[in-house]
Amino acid sequence: MPLLVMKFGGTSVANLDRIENAAKKVQEEVARGYDVIVIVSAMSGKTNELVGWVEGTSKLYDTREYDAIVSSGENVTAGLMALRLQEMGIGARSWQGWQVPINTTDAHASARFVSIPRENIDADFAGGNKVAVVAGFQGVTEGGRITTLGRGGSDTTAVAFAAAFGAERCDIYTDVDGVYTTDPRIVSKARKMEKIAFEEMLELASLGAKVLQTRSVELAMRYKVRLRVLSSFEATDETSGTLVCDEEEIMESKVVSGVAFSRDEAKMTLVRVEDRPGVAAAIFGPLAEAQVNVDMIVQNISEKVAGDAKLYTDMTFSLPVNQVERAKKALEDSRASGAVTYAELITDTETAKVSVVGIGMRSQVGVAAKMFAALAAENINIKVITTSEIKISVLIDRKYMELAVQTLHDTFGLEQA
Amino acid sequence: MPLLVMKFGGTSVANLDRIENAAKKVQEEVARGYDVIVIVSAMSGKTNELVGWVEGTSKLYDTREYDAIVSSGENVTAGLMALRLQEMGIGARSWQGWQVPINTTDAHASARFVSIPRENIDADFAGGNKVAVVAGFQGVTEGGRITTLGRGGSDTTAVAFAAAFGAERCDIYTDVDGVYTTDPRIVSKARKMEKIAFEEMLELASLGAKVLQTRSVELAMRYKVRLRVLSSFEATDETSGTLVCDEEEIMESKVVSGVAFSRDEAKMTLVRVEDRPGVAAAIFGPLAEAQVNVDMIVQNISEKVAGDAKLYTDMTFSLPVNQVERAKKALEDSRASGAVTYAELITDTETAKVSVVGIGMRSQVGVAAKMFAALAAENINIKVITTSEIKISVLIDRKYMELAVQTLHDTFGLEQA
Repeated sequence: MPLLVMKFGGTSVANLDRIENAAKKVQEEVARGYDVIVIVSAMSGKTNELVGWVEGTSKLYDTREYDAIVSSGENVTAGLMALRLQEMGIGARSWQGWQVPINTTDAHASARFVSIPRENIDADFAGGNKVAVVAGFQGVTEGGRITTLGRGGSDTTAVAFAAAFGAERCDIYTDVDGVYTTDPRIVSKARKMEKIAFEEMLELASLGAKVLQTRSVELAMRYKVRLRVLSSFEATDETSGTLVCDEEEIMESKVVSGVAFSRDEAKMTLVRVEDRPGVAAAIFGPLAEAQVNVDMIVQNISEKVAGDAKLYTDMTFSLPVNQVERAKKALEDSRASGAVTYAELITDTETAKVSVVGIGMRSQVGVAAKMFAALAAENINIKVITTSEIKISVLIDRKYMELAVQTLHDTFGLEQA
Repeated sequence: MPLLVMKFGGTSVANLDRIENAAKKVQEEVARGYDVIVIVSAMSGKTNELVGWVEGTSKLYDTREYDAIVSSGENVTAGLMALRLQEMGIGARSWQGWQVPINTTDAHASARFVSIPRENIDADFAGGNKVAVVAGFQGVTEGGRITTLGRGGSDTTAVAFAAAFGAERCDIYTDVDGVYTTDPRIVSKARKMEKIAFEEMLELASLGAKVLQTRSVELAMRYKVRLRVLSSFEATDETSGTLVCDEEEIMESKVVSGVAFSRDEAKMTLVRVEDRPGVAAAIFGPLAEAQVNVDMIVQNISEKVAGDAKLYTDMTFSLPVNQVERAKKALEDSRASGAVTYAELITDTETAKVSVVGIGMRSQVGVAAKMFAALAAENINIKVITTSEIKISVLIDRKYMELAVQTLHDTFGLEQA
């Protein structure tokens, strides 16, 4: 029997009506001849309520207890979904993480999969049930303690089950109807993509297109799980939404597939850093320890200063605005301890990042030049540039962000399929 | 290390403040040198919310899914209680039913204990933890499905753990400060009892004194678990509340310990039932099938009717008022099928039951006579009488119920210890 994995997020199971609506989508797939593994999140708001109770009880909480508590929301929706499917005459049962079992590491609150044995669920399908409803976001350690996978973990659960059970596809039902070339709230001509390659989705996901959790896309890419993003609030059929797949499935891909952005970026520059082996580690080690998420890093070439035998460089990096104070403190501590020397620390909290992403870039030259020219034509100054094989990112003044996104969307002709 | 079981009901863990308050009571016992097994209910209202969702999804629901859903409330409070105890510097962890494991039958929604192996929790105590916080009301089948014990099951969980672990005492913290000689809302002179025998508590519990669930008292009696009922909202020490214990622990017991009552009783009389072997079964079998809870049953002596070779009798029984219609239909169906014959069905829905309970009755004569005389002196007519070794119950007009309870409380001197 062909098998599908269908995942419903918190807004898709927020109340009994929405659970019924989601169950109807499962019913449609069962009618098409599939066995289905359904992965459910907790009702939207429930996990936050539980986390609030944990944090209200203990500041430095035991993550084993945190996991035991916050995993309960998914158990409730899994049971309710199974009941609703039964009500529709579909053989279904719920599965909690320890019942499958979903074996994970014991890194509580951010556990990783170890194995998902198929025996129990396969036996349930063999016994006549058509649907296995699995509580997302959770697992169990070898020692029998409950774990969770960290926020957004239900997407990852879905992909892991699709891989373990060789599912034909993993459908992620959410509150948007697919992946767009950019945010339609900024560019009205933004277009829903029919297909997108894993690598592109990965860059878009980590750049702030919050449709899919990065880790789930990585996992899908590794196991070649065809991932579909579609809306649980609209009528859907087999061609709805956006398919995230191997690039080989995409016949002819455009040079640039999408424009991503991240609004609340800051830029910090360390001026006249003494350039010696190990200086980058001396700067970014303490930042990492201080939980600062450094994104782009640019180091200028070294220069000599007259009358000084040492070499000096400027080091610039970007980070989320709300981590600037933490970063400052970490750097000043490093300087005070003598681990790092610099003349000045310049902070710019009014920047944004804009990126173009596309696997077609690999075989095309001139994409960066075209991008820079387009921004220049609008008088948008570029502060930092970083590039990867399939992505070019620039840091610019925040006030120009919308203009830059619109300009690049036009320049690369993204409104046309 | 001596061990205590402490059970906190839904109102005692209704929010984070109350959980903290309950945790302080656990802390006091740990300070006295006890290892403690804490049994928690769900936050008050949570189980009802979950049951509402189940019933809103499916009318004839799969009880396996019901159990998986409604058991989640206790998992949350168990985790929160463990965190709060850790915050106080007390080694503690939570235990869900399947982790202990609490092995039960697979009678979902009303499962019974099969075994509670001590290995895992004993190992946890041996590892240095002082408190095991166990989610009440739940268990797990041999096949790995979650079960619940039915409403009030957390009391039963507490007693079962006390028996399995040989606890010195099982303390049931609730929203009243003990067991009273009768309801203080009706008799202002009602007195809190220091001790009460299991048998008496059992009669009081099943008669409507809703402090402890009947099943938990039965279990405590069978395993001789000393049970204490006390308030979680007042300062308590080792002498607080009411101890429910073996009668041997009660030095000198009064003839009557308490007066119980049940307000909403109805009385049904089948007039001129043909009296032949099997007639009682023919009447009460169908009533049981119709889920009618018949309580008192009285059968008058048979009589002969002139010109008829058969014997006839009148059969009277009591039942909850809200089950009268169901009982009527079952009896009329039996009559229509010819299984039972009777001349008339008389229903009285304006009655109440009043009972006096006391193990001292066993060795004292004249208790019934004294009770009937006291009621007669107040012109209260007795409609039905039943007696057991330690209880005398009468059915009377509902409007006299309060008067009867006050009169009997006075007559047997219950205001004095």
